[in-house]
Amino acid sequence: MNFHIISAFPGVFENFLNESIIKRASQIGAFRYYLHDLRDYSTDKHKTVDDYAFGGGPGMILKPEPIFYAVEDIISRFEIDDPRIILTSAMGRILDQTYVNEVASNVSCTLIIICGHYKGIDERVRQYLATEEISIGNYILTGGELPALILVDSIVRLLPGVLGDFDSATSDSFQSDLLDCAYYTRPQNFRDLTVPDILLSGHHEKIKKWRHKSSIENTGRQNLKK
Amino acid sequence: MNFHIISAFPGVFENFLNESIIKRASQIGAFRYYLHDLRDYSTDKHKTVDDYAFGGGPGMILKPEPIFYAVEDIISRFEIDDPRIILTSAMGRILDQTYVNEVASNVSCTLIIICGHYKGIDERVRQYLATEEISIGNYILTGGELPALILVDSIVRLLPGVLGDFDSATSDSFQSDLLDCAYYTRPQNFRDLTVPDILLSGHHEKIKKWRHKSSIENTGRQNLKK
Repeated sequence: MNFHIISAFPGVFENFLNESIIKRASQIGAFRYYLHDLRDYSTDKHKTVDDYAFGGGPGMILKPEPIFYAVEDIISRFEIDDPRIILTSAMGRILDQTYVNEVASNVSCTLIIICGHYKGIDERVRQYLATEEISIGNYILTGGELPALILVDSIVRLLPGVLGDFDSATSDSFQSDLLDCAYYTRPQNFRDLTVPDILLSGHHEKIKKWRHKSSIENTGRQNLKK
Repeated sequence: MNFHIISAFPGVFENFLNESIIKRASQIGAFRYYLHDLRDYSTDKHKTVDDYAFGGGPGMILKPEPIFYAVEDIISRFEIDDPRIILTSAMGRILDQTYVNEVASNVSCTLIIICGHYKGIDERVRQYLATEEISIGNYILTGGELPALILVDSIVRLLPGVLGDFDSATSDSFQSDLLDCAYYTRPQNFRDLTVPDILLSGHHEKIKKWRHKSSIENTGRQNLKK
């Protein structure tokens, strides 16, 4: 799977993509990523990528030309057929595990992710360029860079070979509409806070039942917090 | 406002916190952040922070001791009264703008954010250490580092002085239960895709009405995608 990320702040991405599981996923060839600096596609010598909104009001809007030019150049230069062109935006479909699973299931696809920034992005990008618009949740951020990383992270961990054990992904929260269960690790006794006996019992069936009950409790507790 | 972030992968954070609006917010003193390497609080020479789950199963669990020790050391060393100790976890309350506004409104508070990682975190951290548990959405990530950054980003942008114009934040999506409206910037005509005449008219009342209608349309369209 190939990810192309278009951003006016490409420096944001380097560290994250060089850490932990995502770094390993890149090293084993599960995915490739390319960072594209939106300012390289600016049409003036000041490398401007934003401008004031027509109709007035505070905040800067990302201009349409650099974004169209960037996407077109990437498609042409990398000879991409049928890319998914995803705009990260508060207006988008709210990201959930169903969407992540669907994207990850097509391991040969190419994603071009356009990161919003500042107050917003010219409407023509939304209407005539992006094929999808994704929001990671009902809260406002300074830009679409973190949402782009959320997309990469959530998708890449499902690609073949990335997690050491496939079960570790399929037993996660949401993969069965239930949150994950409680987990304990050593020490068995930490400041008199102890691990439930059942988990030390070796009775696999009883442990399975305990964990299922714990999953249901965690799911119910989260619903109460909504 | 002070943020303390505890993570086994502190390198993830540096780039993001040195970019764009967040960097400026730090420079003007709107907030301070401290990164703490969880491995510094490991109790063995291999700097282990994770272990297998009691009861079996795939995936590694973050051990309780290093996390308790880290939080206690930070509270003591920085002489923090009444910190909010936030665990990033799929089991948490789903982050929304109401929560972000509430945290940002207390500009003198200190947040200690514990980043989950791997398969999960020892249940004793959830039950006996964290004061709050936050999930950024219904999808699984490789760790709690990106969610910690989402928290920082969403909160910091609301702190006094961070955004150039206060209106730019209060007119955002979610601040009125509606998504933001469509925006256009120059050029007025890009490949025959043009800006709606009303936005060029100078009629402030009509523009206001057009934007309100656009907000309602964007909100309705997102609800259809759910």
